[in-house]
Amino acid sequence: MGNLLVVGSVALDTVKTPFGEVSEVLGGSATYFATAASYFTSVDLIAVVGEDFPDQHLRFLKSRGIDLTGLERRAGETFRWKGEYSHQLNEAHTLDTRLNVFETFRPKIPDQYRSPSMLFLGNIDPELQLDVLRQVRRPILVACDTMNFWIERKREALWRVLEQVDVLIINDGEARALGGHPNLTQVARETLARGPKHLVIKRGEYGVVLFNQKQTFAAPAFPLEQVQDPTGAGDTFAGGFMGYLAATGNLSEASIRQAVVFGSVMASFTVEAFSLDRLRALDYKEIEARFREFKRLTHFEDLS
Amino acid sequence: MGNLLVVGSVALDTVKTPFGEVSEVLGGSATYFATAASYFTSVDLIAVVGEDFPDQHLRFLKSRGIDLTGLERRAGETFRWKGEYSHQLNEAHTLDTRLNVFETFRPKIPDQYRSPSMLFLGNIDPELQLDVLRQVRRPILVACDTMNFWIERKREALWRVLEQVDVLIINDGEARALGGHPNLTQVARETLARGPKHLVIKRGEYGVVLFNQKQTFAAPAFPLEQVQDPTGAGDTFAGGFMGYLAATGNLSEASIRQAVVFGSVMASFTVEAFSLDRLRALDYKEIEARFREFKRLTHFEDLS
Repeated sequence: MGNLLVVGSVALDTVKTPFGEVSEVLGGSATYFATAASYFTSVDLIAVVGEDFPDQHLRFLKSRGIDLTGLERRAGETFRWKGEYSHQLNEAHTLDTRLNVFETFRPKIPDQYRSPSMLFLGNIDPELQLDVLRQVRRPILVACDTMNFWIERKREALWRVLEQVDVLIINDGEARALGGHPNLTQVARETLARGPKHLVIKRGEYGVVLFNQKQTFAAPAFPLEQVQDPTGAGDTFAGGFMGYLAATGNLSEASIRQAVVFGSVMASFTVEAFSLDRLRALDYKEIEARFREFKRLTHFEDLS
Repeated sequence: MGNLLVVGSVALDTVKTPFGEVSEVLGGSATYFATAASYFTSVDLIAVVGEDFPDQHLRFLKSRGIDLTGLERRAGETFRWKGEYSHQLNEAHTLDTRLNVFETFRPKIPDQYRSPSMLFLGNIDPELQLDVLRQVRRPILVACDTMNFWIERKREALWRVLEQVDVLIINDGEARALGGHPNLTQVARETLARGPKHLVIKRGEYGVVLFNQKQTFAAPAFPLEQVQDPTGAGDTFAGGFMGYLAATGNLSEASIRQAVVFGSVMASFTVEAFSLDRLRALDYKEIEARFREFKRLTHFEDLS
C-alpha cells in the first residue's frame, strides 16, 4: 500500500490580520495539507518551489516525515501570496499573487509515487488535476479542491475531474458557484448526482457539512477565543480529513464522520497562529484531546 | 406551578422572499414564540393588537391552547412589519415598520399570570422588560431577547435586565454589538461574567451556539432543500427551547442541550413556509422525528 499523495502549491505568504502581520512565511495548499496529514500517515508531496525557497522550510517538512522527492526545485522565484483579513476573519482579501515558478507547474509523479493509497488534488488547474489522475493507478480514495477561478473558466474540465473523484472539498461560496444557486442542500444533491460520492462544504467559522447519497453530517467549527490567522484552514482540514482516512483505511460512514472531525480539529489549531506555527508545535495528544472536546461540544442525548 | 409566560409583539407582516410574497399575514415575536412553545406546554401571551386584528388569528392562537387573557385589544391599528429577503436568506431588509398600538404598549400582567413557571421577555424596550420583571414572582427560568436598537440606545437598562435573566437568546450580530468585538467566545465569556447563566447565539442557517460557565454546545441548523421564509425563525427557536424546558422542568445541562435541539427543530419547520403556515400544519410526531434526524445529522463516534 502506498502513501497519501498530495499535489498542490508551496508558497511564501505575506499576511496581515487584525492580530499581527508576517512576511514571506511558509504557506501554500500542499504545505498545510501535508503537514496536517503527517500527524496521521506518511505523505508524499508534489509541488514546485524556486531557487529562493529557504532550506529551513525543507528541513521542517522533512522533520514531519514528508517525502519531498516530488518537490521540484526550479530556476526562478517561489509562488508568493499576499493577503489581508478584516475583523470578519472568514474571507481573505488578496493583495498580490505572484505565481512565479508555479505558473508553469506541470506535476510529474515520480515512479515510486504512482500507486498512492489516497490522492489529494489541491487547488490547481483542472487540466493538471486530470493529468495527475492519468499518471497514477486508481487510489482507494481521491479527493480534490478547486476555486471560483476554475469553476468559472474551466467548468468542463472541472466536471471531468469531479467524475473521477470520491470527495470534493470546497467552501460554501465555491459550492454555490458550482451549483449555480444558493441552497447548499440542492447544490449537494445535484453535484452528487454527477460525480463525487461525498461533498464536503467548508464554512469557515461555521464549520463543515458533509453530504453523500445517504446521509448528511454537520460539524461546527471548534470555538476559539483567539483566531490569529485563518490562512490554510481549509487545506489543513483536508489534510487532517485524508490523513486520518489513509491511516485507518476505513471508508465507512462512521470513519468518514470522524475524519471530518479530525480535519476540523487540525484546522482549529492552524488558525491559532500565523503560518504553520501552531502545527509545528503540535503534539498528537493535543489532537486527541481536542477531538474529545469536540465530542463534548456537539453531544446531546437522543430521545428515549 | 404556573405556565410559560411570553411578552412580545403580535403583528401583521408583509414579506417578500425569492420564493414568493405574502401580505398582512400573522406575525410577531410573541406569536411565533407562543405557537412553537404550545407544542410542549401551556402558554400565556402578553401583547397588544389593534381593533383591525382579524378574529381568525385569535381563533388560531386559541386552537393551540394559548391563553389570550393578557392579549390587549386597543383602539388603533395592529403593529405592521414589511420586509424583504434576498437570496442570502440570513438577513431581512426592513422596508417599513409601523408600530401603531405597539408603540405605547405597556405590558400589564393579569393577576393569574403573576407566578409563571418560566418567562420569556421578547424583544421590547428593556425598560418594559424590567417593568415585567417587577410584576411577577421570580420564575424558575427567565429568558430574554433584544436587538441592536436597544443595545445601542438603552445599554444600561438592558444590562439591568441581563443581571436578572438566566438565558439571553440573541443572534450573532447582536452578540457582537453587545460585546463590542467580533470573537463570539470572548463576547460570551464577558457577558456570562456580568449576568445571564446561559448565552444562546443564533446564527441563522449556521445553527446555534450555547455558552455557559462550564460548557459550550454547538448545534447546526437542520439542512433544508426549501427555505421559503426565515421570518420568525429566531422566536420559534426560543419558543421550542423554552417550551421544552417548561414541559420537563429539568434545567440540567443535558436537558438544556436537548432544548436547543428542539428549538432548532421548530425553527427548521417555520422557515419551510411563509408566516406560521408550517407550524399550523405540524404534528408532534413530526417534531420528534426531526429531533431524531438531528441526532443522526450530528452524531459521530468518540475516540475509544
